[in-house]
Amino acid sequence: MEPIKPYKKDAGYSYTLGAFPTIELLKCRPSAVKEVFVHSSFTDRETIDALCGKAGIPVTVSDKTIARLSDKENCFVVGVFEKYTEKLKEDVPHIVLVNPSNMGNLGTILRTAAAMGIYDIAIISPGVDSFHPKAVRASMGALFRLRHRYYDGFESYRKEFPAHEVFCFMLTGEHPLTLSDAPKPALFSLVFGNEAAGLPAEFASYGQSVVIPQTSAVDSLNLTIAVGIGSYVFMQHLFR
Amino acid sequence: MEPIKPYKKDAGYSYTLGAFPTIELLKCRPSAVKEVFVHSSFTDRETIDALCGKAGIPVTVSDKTIARLSDKENCFVVGVFEKYTEKLKEDVPHIVLVNPSNMGNLGTILRTAAAMGIYDIAIISPGVDSFHPKAVRASMGALFRLRHRYYDGFESYRKEFPAHEVFCFMLTGEHPLTLSDAPKPALFSLVFGNEAAGLPAEFASYGQSVVIPQTSAVDSLNLTIAVGIGSYVFMQHLFR
Repeated sequence: MEPIKPYKKDAGYSYTLGAFPTIELLKCRPSAVKEVFVHSSFTDRETIDALCGKAGIPVTVSDKTIARLSDKENCFVVGVFEKYTEKLKEDVPHIVLVNPSNMGNLGTILRTAAAMGIYDIAIISPGVDSFHPKAVRASMGALFRLRHRYYDGFESYRKEFPAHEVFCFMLTGEHPLTLSDAPKPALFSLVFGNEAAGLPAEFASYGQSVVIPQTSAVDSLNLTIAVGIGSYVFMQHLFR
Repeated sequence: MEPIKPYKKDAGYSYTLGAFPTIELLKCRPSAVKEVFVHSSFTDRETIDALCGKAGIPVTVSDKTIARLSDKENCFVVGVFEKYTEKLKEDVPHIVLVNPSNMGNLGTILRTAAAMGIYDIAIISPGVDSFHPKAVRASMGALFRLRHRYYDGFESYRKEFPAHEVFCFMLTGEHPLTLSDAPKPALFSLVFGNEAAGLPAEFASYGQSVVIPQTSAVDSLNLTIAVGIGSYVFMQHLFR
């Protein structure tokens, strides 16, 4: 394979930094993994060696490679994987992120979505790079348990999934999202805007606009918290 | 006043970094503010000058002071304030954070609590420093809208507020927190553990132990997300 260089957005491969996300990668996407590097001081190799052995993935000890790819000192394992694209599932709920701009938030959202049982994530471009090692690390590897796909605009996402009932989270949303009055659709898309700007006004006409009741003490909830509460409410009747 | 030095935990004063948290400080805690520094390139001074004028707080242009106190390049306003302690209110819901370890998370939690209408926060020591400029900034100044107080242990908090019904959020919690079956106490404490370890097992006996239903795809929800969902559910019947 090509020499291992620091991550670039237009490269065909990316990295998992740390044992936990690398193990998630090996468990969920073994066929995408090209190589795993471990630090000479890393002794807890059992799980990684077993998963790599099973999938025929080389494990190489190289402190130099790890130092080159990771900006943190406590990184002892790096997985190299080929980026992939895949389709979202048609008959399950989706989360749609419109122009997400923060990699840490994207990672947290992916992790939260998986915890809440939503495994299909659409990202409307422009948006941060889901395969950037920082986003992968913030997701703790949850990225690999999910299907995700980028779309040029909301319209092209919508065209592919016309049967999903659309709920747009907006501060100006018409329907307050309350426990007693929560919608219970079987198939739905939860749509969230960018961290700074939220959803543009025209999204109010793309489906039902909803708002999480909140005081005027702060200007708005963090995006990650809004996704957490929204997913929790909508997945309730499907969850158990 | 003493010369302005970089923040120290044992100093009697701290800083707001940025215009937004400084305006929150001036609005909510004017009597704690000693001085405000603005950068010579900062032109949008109207709100800050008006608030400072009303409260007799000096505003000084000093690029050097701002550079010394802030580690970010886009900081144009710094507020200097005296740290304060105050009592939590007795007849309202509380959030109790047991040994929180991340300043960014603490800030996000404070912001989320205020958005959800919970304005009283107990922090069980050891825990991160709520007045650290990083925590203040992560809260976007919501810290100043809340009352918060440190306690040596959960017992001393509990002794002060024996009437609050206690709900401990634990992965091993007995009662799944569902929409249809959500508790509706009038006066309650929502108790959350540390980011890495959660609540120690003995908390199960301190009150009702609850769990936010989640898949096994991830090991647990982020602390901030758990606080967001928990606050949302418990504040529902009080909110509107």
